[in-house]
Amino acid sequence: MPDKEQITEWFKTLQDQICEALEVTDGKAKFHQDLWEREGGGGGRTRIIQDGNILEKGGVNFSAVYGQLPENIQKALKVEHNEFYATGVSIVIHPNSPMVPIIHMNTRYFEIAGETYWFGGGIDLTPHYIDKAQAVDFHQQLKTVCDVFDANFYSEHKKWADDYFFNKHRNETRGVGGIFFDRLNENSTGHTKEHIFNYVKEVGKAFAPIYTKLMKANADLPYGEQEKQWQLLRRGRYVEFNLVYDKGTKFGLDTSGRIESILMSLPKLASWEYNFQPEEHSEEAQTLSLLKKEIDWVNIS
Amino acid sequence: MPDKEQITEWFKTLQDQICEALEVTDGKAKFHQDLWEREGGGGGRTRIIQDGNILEKGGVNFSAVYGQLPENIQKALKVEHNEFYATGVSIVIHPNSPMVPIIHMNTRYFEIAGETYWFGGGIDLTPHYIDKAQAVDFHQQLKTVCDVFDANFYSEHKKWADDYFFNKHRNETRGVGGIFFDRLNENSTGHTKEHIFNYVKEVGKAFAPIYTKLMKANADLPYGEQEKQWQLLRRGRYVEFNLVYDKGTKFGLDTSGRIESILMSLPKLASWEYNFQPEEHSEEAQTLSLLKKEIDWVNIS
Repeated sequence: MPDKEQITEWFKTLQDQICEALEVTDGKAKFHQDLWEREGGGGGRTRIIQDGNILEKGGVNFSAVYGQLPENIQKALKVEHNEFYATGVSIVIHPNSPMVPIIHMNTRYFEIAGETYWFGGGIDLTPHYIDKAQAVDFHQQLKTVCDVFDANFYSEHKKWADDYFFNKHRNETRGVGGIFFDRLNENSTGHTKEHIFNYVKEVGKAFAPIYTKLMKANADLPYGEQEKQWQLLRRGRYVEFNLVYDKGTKFGLDTSGRIESILMSLPKLASWEYNFQPEEHSEEAQTLSLLKKEIDWVNIS
Repeated sequence: MPDKEQITEWFKTLQDQICEALEVTDGKAKFHQDLWEREGGGGGRTRIIQDGNILEKGGVNFSAVYGQLPENIQKALKVEHNEFYATGVSIVIHPNSPMVPIIHMNTRYFEIAGETYWFGGGIDLTPHYIDKAQAVDFHQQLKTVCDVFDANFYSEHKKWADDYFFNKHRNETRGVGGIFFDRLNENSTGHTKEHIFNYVKEVGKAFAPIYTKLMKANADLPYGEQEKQWQLLRRGRYVEFNLVYDKGTKFGLDTSGRIESILMSLPKLASWEYNFQPEEHSEEAQTLSLLKKEIDWVNIS
């Protein structure tokens, strides 16, 4: 059965592989690494890429932290003991071009000594302009990963992403969704720990091919001032989601995590315009019309 | 004793007067008004100014809403009845120049029919670059208003602002503070309703002279690319505060208020840079060193 040391090592390797793949595809920018330690125990490797050919600002972060859970979090998680161990890889990438989507990936493992463990994670895509064929392909790639492990994972974890990556105050999904899952273990899935870990591994391994494919396909598409403005507005929505709803961000801010690592998810530049309404039948309006839950991407016609 | 109709009328007039003063001082941009209605009862006048000589984006909003409080809010407010009436004026102004401060003002009145009422409000200033003399003058003007009504109001409401306008995750105040107060009524202050309303009125009336003075004094100060970049980063902090901590924003998002009126507080453009550290002894570092609670501005040497 995979133990926390093995899982931690695997996440480190995943971080290395993803950083390498992104650097190669970007062709210019290199990750800058900051090592940090956590007062209560553990630490991380924050890796930031900036001002690339394709990538404007992104982070591929690894951390492994442990210690005592504060009582309020212990209650929120409904666990009896407080010795915790948490490790994971977190990614958010903001590209230069509005034609290349924003992407987010996370794989994580959490353990309460002698009591319980769970895995969580997911990948979701936020195109500034939704290309239907690419959204279908994105979901199809995730479904292919899911289907190897459980016939229900894709539909369940796709719905979870729809519900999670949602700006309630705007009645708008963050992007085209993807998959999201949390608290997966024997009890919640009926699968062995090894089986679930293998699923999480495959999700992690899927990230680099999925995103580098989109980088290559879209980085050279032409765009103008209007597309750039729209990108900044969509990034504003991304900021709204991350600061208002994202549980990882809130958890990090509440527990005084390493702020700069947590907020690496925020874009270099974002914009808010009062009551902006895209023109009817424009590409922007078309994208907005697709920011809805429950679109069955893999079967869309 | 002032009743809700009188208070509402007074807030409307205040909105008119402030909009006029800002337009005159800006000399170019005019407020655009959107009237809106709330499904449960009431509505508002959202007024937005954009692309002025001095003001880049700002809102001066009036609203008066009423109806039934949702149960969770009733509990949070610790009131027994649920027939509420709420009216107020809310302002956030983002100027073009990094040399002109961001400002926020709010005056509000809340009533539970047959049970209780209270006033709330405040003014706080967020200079991108702190000019000590101007910060002192700002606080002195607020103290002059406060001192007419209660010898303790300034020190109490100044501390309230320090504690409220605080980005806990960065251990940084939003700006140089100001005054903030909530739930003022006979019980909490020992003053009559009329006395408290007069205080709130004077706070409201103080806004236009305070801010137009700063607009005139600073709008023509020279600045370059470095100052502009710094302004965008400071606006990023403003966004963080408003989306993570601000109770008015949270209340609005939770209760499905008019989103575009609530989020008018967000700037046209904001920036996040990973782990940005200003140069030692720079103007930016000097400003950061003053983003602390408990600076006794009126007695600073």
